[in-house]
This record gives sequence, structure tokens and C-alpha cells, in this order.
Amino acid sequence: MSFDIRHAAAKASAAKTAIANLDQGARLQLLLDVASELRKATDSVLTANQIDIQTAHASGLPAPMIDRLTLDFKGVESIALAVEDIAKQPEVLGSVSNIRPMPSGIQVGKMRIPLGVVAMIYESRPNVTIDAAVLCLKAGNAVILRGGKEAQASNQALADVLHAALQKNGLSKDVCTVIPDPDREIMNDMLTLSDDIDLIIPRGGEGLIRHVSENSKIPVIQHFKGVCHLYIDAQADLQKALPILENGKTQRTGVCNALETLLIHKDIAAEALPHIATLFAKHDVKVHACERSLAFFENAVAAQDEDWHAEYLALEIAVRVVNDFERAVEHIQQYGSGHTEVIVTENLANAQRFMREVNSSVIMLNASSRFSDGGELGLGAEIGISTSKLHAYGPMGAEQLTTEKFVVYGDGHIRA
Amino acid sequence: MSFDIRHAAAKASAAKTAIANLDQGARLQLLLDVASELRKATDSVLTANQIDIQTAHASGLPAPMIDRLTLDFKGVESIALAVEDIAKQPEVLGSVSNIRPMPSGIQVGKMRIPLGVVAMIYESRPNVTIDAAVLCLKAGNAVILRGGKEAQASNQALADVLHAALQKNGLSKDVCTVIPDPDREIMNDMLTLSDDIDLIIPRGGEGLIRHVSENSKIPVIQHFKGVCHLYIDAQADLQKALPILENGKTQRTGVCNALETLLIHKDIAAEALPHIATLFAKHDVKVHACERSLAFFENAVAAQDEDWHAEYLALEIAVRVVNDFERAVEHIQQYGSGHTEVIVTENLANAQRFMREVNSSVIMLNASSRFSDGGELGLGAEIGISTSKLHAYGPMGAEQLTTEKFVVYGDGHIRA
Repeated sequence: MSFDIRHAAAKASAAKTAIANLDQGARLQLLLDVASELRKATDSVLTANQIDIQTAHASGLPAPMIDRLTLDFKGVESIALAVEDIAKQPEVLGSVSNIRPMPSGIQVGKMRIPLGVVAMIYESRPNVTIDAAVLCLKAGNAVILRGGKEAQASNQALADVLHAALQKNGLSKDVCTVIPDPDREIMNDMLTLSDDIDLIIPRGGEGLIRHVSENSKIPVIQHFKGVCHLYIDAQADLQKALPILENGKTQRTGVCNALETLLIHKDIAAEALPHIATLFAKHDVKVHACERSLAFFENAVAAQDEDWHAEYLALEIAVRVVNDFERAVEHIQQYGSGHTEVIVTENLANAQRFMREVNSSVIMLNASSRFSDGGELGLGAEIGISTSKLHAYGPMGAEQLTTEKFVVYGDGHIRA
Repeated sequence: MSFDIRHAAAKASAAKTAIANLDQGARLQLLLDVASELRKATDSVLTANQIDIQTAHASGLPAPMIDRLTLDFKGVESIALAVEDIAKQPEVLGSVSNIRPMPSGIQVGKMRIPLGVVAMIYESRPNVTIDAAVLCLKAGNAVILRGGKEAQASNQALADVLHAALQKNGLSKDVCTVIPDPDREIMNDMLTLSDDIDLIIPRGGEGLIRHVSENSKIPVIQHFKGVCHLYIDAQADLQKALPILENGKTQRTGVCNALETLLIHKDIAAEALPHIATLFAKHDVKVHACERSLAFFENAVAAQDEDWHAEYLALEIAVRVVNDFERAVEHIQQYGSGHTEVIVTENLANAQRFMREVNSSVIMLNASSRFSDGGELGLGAEIGISTSKLHAYGPMGAEQLTTEKFVVYGDGHIRA
């Protein structure tokens, strides 16, 4: 019998008021109980995870996917610690900002409130089940989780953890629904339930995100690819530029905040490119070089137009020499994915223009793109990185899972 | 030959950088020039408006729609004054908030930036053409305007005004596109252009808004109906409650912030209802009353379930006696439209609970629902009232047509 997503969404919506109205102490206790229930359930979570791993081996899942799927004792403990971190972050709900008197005599402010019901669609990492649920609970939302079929058994064991914590705190398990059936039709049905679900956050491959965005009747926060650029300006300090390039390209390659394209001002190219070639050779980085930089690299290949769009997620980079600052900005505007862009320069005017004019979600001066992450930017844990400008742009933490309503205080005031 | 919306949207997107990067003085000048070009063009705007009015009469358009369509000298002047008001409001772009040092040593803040290209879909009021364009320009966005076919000639004359001001300031007229062809297919095509358009704001009847929401591949900010509630609590001061009721229901009836449902605590019902009946009789308000209040009114009809959902937009109201505070909140949660809700009470605990727990876009204590308006809430002009929680909730001014990006300042920092 197939899972009834319509019924589940209606129940989640009915449960949202209880989680929204928890006071701060009760919310802290609930989240701490998620951590302790998770620790208690370590054995059953790992047993379930073994089932997923065996199924994955049997069905010939590629090794990196099995790696993402795998949990061990340390992994479970690190999820529990992350939950405790989120629990102890400052409360995001109920704060009233900017109360101002109006000419009519009323006082007007804005109060932060939950969105309602948030649905997450994601792939094989089982830790997302707990992270996403806990961030939603922190923000006072009910949550519907639809993980990948590879992690089905693990996700059900983690659902039991969430439900145990909810029950212990007198809350309905409808506050956290983990869809047990990875059937695509169920997901597609879910995308139509705009009366009960307020937001959909898909995380995963570009195909999944496009499918969700194009079929959803519910607002979607998208995270497409991260084609992050480093622009080395004419007046860059190479003592800063080279470590930032190395860190951005080689520290971790499979992540969306890794560098994919290097732009370099023509006036510094001759000085910088030999050092850059040495750096790339040391790390065995494959280079797709423009005509003007090709000769500096051993074994580089000529860049094609598709390289400017490429998210390699590997030890691979596109390199282009540009005539001036404007050309660098134009390149980013034309080919960028709205994720993260870095300028390295000592020229104040260019630094200011870059920060102001380049409208990707994270803009950096003389710092590594690898800082583009909820934790590093001070949000605590992150639920995703939005590359669409509506509602949230860039890394999203608990606060980005809330909205603000107007609050008006009068004493019998009427409108003239 | 049909209008090429795909081409127009691509041109709007190409023009967005120029309008985003205007400095504050240049933006002020552009907006002041819209006002002066409008005054200069008064004759041609009124001539065009006469054409629309004649067409409307000939096609038998209802009188209230012709009324909304009609411009006169005073109307044009009041649009020009509104433009000058918006022009002189504080700049919304470029401010950087909350710069904080992180443990890694980087400094992180958020900078307010435009959304990009905003498309407005609206009906017969031609003043929206200028208001919406100017709010979008204030927020640094390019704008695509799709007005109703009734106002076609007026809108083209107003497009000429916008283009004259843009040209005078060295900007492309692609910054403001007024679609000359009200064909529905063009609008439907527009809803698919998610690469070039960042936000759609439909204003008009519920049918239009639903059609846009269900067919758009672009984020939509919805303003559905305003079923605004007044709850008179057991400890209400009737000296405040009665004027707030009268103002909310009778000052203007065809607006979304008018009251549609009155909830009244059983302990104050017997005292209050005779006064309320007098008040309604004075204004000839038709009453749909619950069983417990029916006898208090002359000529009231028994309320049906559909009355709790009704947006009458007329001298008509639904009245229900509730057993307690919780019942009032439940009624609002079940039947409310997320617009505006008012509590009248002297009970501090209930006031606080109402402000905290009722999550419509505007929540008021002892004040008239008629204050639920961008101008009264301090936003300056408003482009609409959002009843969907994503991105903006409640009245939307220029700031709600922007987003924030992260800005990161380092000095060679890399991630450990």
C-alpha cells in the first residue's frame, strides 16, 4: 500500500501550531532529547545503516555514494553534537524588531515567526535527516523529510529517534514526518500540496532540483551549482592570492564552494602564472586554459565555452586572462551561478566596486571561497545554500526558515 | 504581429545591471524626472485615458471598473506627488548590516541588493503602472508591467513617460517594459521565463492570482483575499472596541483591510451586542449571525459555513460568539486568509498570546484593521500585500523588492 502523502501533509499542518508555540525552554529540551535519543539508538541506527550499505553494494552503487551513505559510531556522535550545537544557539522566534511610532499614534514592529511546514527533498546522506529536522524544529516548523531510497532503512531508524524525542515532550510525531516510500509519484504529489506545505527545499543533483522547481506549486528554494570564481586583480598581493587559490581549489574538491574558474588581470598574468602553474602541478590540477594563459601550463588543454560554465567538483580548473576589472565582472555575470565570488586586490576602489556590483550570494575580498558555509559565516548549522534571490540568498540557517509578521500596538486607534 | 515577450525579458535582464548600479543621487534624479515628465505629459495621458474610457463604455464595462480606470488632472498630479515621495524616501540599496568578526578572522556582513527583474501583472488601475515602476526603480530592479486590456492606451502613454525619464538619464528604456498586448498567451509565456525574470507579483482577482501561481515557473508573491477578523475579548473596553469595529467595517468597504468577521467572547456578548446592533443598523450593515447572536440583530440572517470564509467587500459582516480566547484563535486559524487580525482587550496575557500565536501577516492590539497598509505601517508606498510567507509577508514597499547577499572581508584568510 502506497504512502498517503496528502494525509501526512494535512497532519503535519495540523501539528504546526504546537511546535510554533513551544516556549524557549521547552524547545531546548526537545532538541537536547533528540541528541540523547540518537545516542541511545546508536546500535539500531547502525544496524539499519548496514542494511542500506548491503543493498547499495548489491545494486552496484558507486563507491563515493556508498561513502556518503555510511554511518559509524563517530558519525552518529558527530550528528548528536551538531544537534546540541543547534539546540544551544540563540532563539530565533518571537523577537520583535524595530518598533516605531507612526504619525497616527500606533506603534509598529515586526515579529519573527515560523514558516509553518517545510519539506526537504534530499539524496543519500542520512545525517541530513536529523540536521534538517532539527533546524526546522529550532525555527518552529513542522517538517516533512523525503530522503533517497539508498538511505531508506537508516532514515526510518532516525525517524524513530525524532519521534521518541517528540513523544517524550508531549508532541505529536506528525511534527516530523519521514516519508517511508521513495516512490517518485509520492514526491510529485507532495509538490502540489500548497495548502499544507509552505516551502520545499530540494538538495541534490541539478536534475532533481530542476524537476522540483518546474513541477512545484509550492515555493521552492533552489541551490543549483556552485561555479565559484577567483579574480586576481592587477594590484593583487600574490602572497595572499596564491594561498587563496590553493585553498579554494584543492582543500576539498567535491563541494559547491570550491573554485572552478580563475580570472586573472593581464597586467599581473606574466608574474603570477608561473607560480600558479607550479601550484597546480604540485596538486595535479588539470587546467583548461584560455589562449593567453595556455603556454604557461604543462599539459593544459584549451578552454572551450563549456568550461566557463563547468562545475568540475574535481582537481580541474578553467583559467582566463582578462583585459581589465570590467571584463572580469562581465565574465562572472555571464557565467556565474550566483554562489560565491572572490576578488584578491589591494586596490580599494576595485575592492569596493566588486563587493557592490557583483550580486552572487556571497562576495569575498581577499578570503577563500571555502568560507562560504553556514558555520563559517556565523549561521550555525546550515540547511542548504540558496542561489535564488527570493526569501533567502546564500547559506541558510534556522533564521532563514522563518518569516516576519507586522505587529501593531494601539489603544483604541482608528484610521482618519 | 504579436509582442515578443521572450526577447523583451532578455533585454530587461540585460538592462538590470545599469539600474542596479546607479548611485543614490542619480537614482533620485531619475525618479524626480519621472514625476516631471508625467506632469509635462498630462494632456497626452488624459487623452489616452479618454480612449480607454470610451472603449470601456462601448464594451459595457461595469461602472466601478470604469471608475477605477478613470484619470483626471488631479489624479495625474497625485501620482506625480506619490512618485516624489518615493524618490525622497531613504535609499534601500547598498546598506551593509551587522558586520561581525568570525573565529576564523574574516568579517561577515550582509548587503542589500536588487532582485533583478520584477514583473507586475495587474488589472484596470493605470496609476499602478507608475507606482509599480517607480517602486521597482527605487529598489534597483528592471520591471516588466502587464496591465489590463481596459487600460491599454493609458498604459502606453505612461510607458512613454517612463521612457522619457530613462532616456533623459542615459538609461535604456528596456529598464521599464510595458507590454502593449494584453493577450493571455503572452502572459503565460512570461511565466516560464525564469532565466530572465526573478519575481512575479500579480494583483487583482483571486482567479488571476491562482492562475499565475499555478502556472509560473518563477517565484510568485501572492496576495489572496483579506478575510480580516476583529476579536472582542471578555475584558475588552467597548469604548475602544466599537469605534474600531465601525472604522474597520464601514470606513471603506471595497478594500482588503476592511473587517469581514466579528468574533466576540460570550462573557461580553450580552453587553456589547445591543450597541453593535445599533451601530450596524446606523450604517445599514447586513449581518450573518451565529445562533447565539442572531436574536440581537433586526433582519440578520443565520450564518452559514461559507460566511466564515467570505470576503464581502461590502456593508456586510459575519458575527460569531465564542466560548473563550482559544476558540477565537482557532476560528482565525481555520478561516483566516493570513491578512490582518485584531484583538481588542485590556487583558495583558491575552494581548501577548494573540500577538504571539496568531500568525497572519499583520496582528493588531486595540487598533483598526484599516491601518494595515504600507503607508500607515511606515513603508512609504506599497506594491501589494503578501499573504504568502515566503520572502515578504504583509504590505510590501521598496525594501521588499530587494534581497541581501553576504559580504566577506579578509586579508588573505584561508580555511583551515
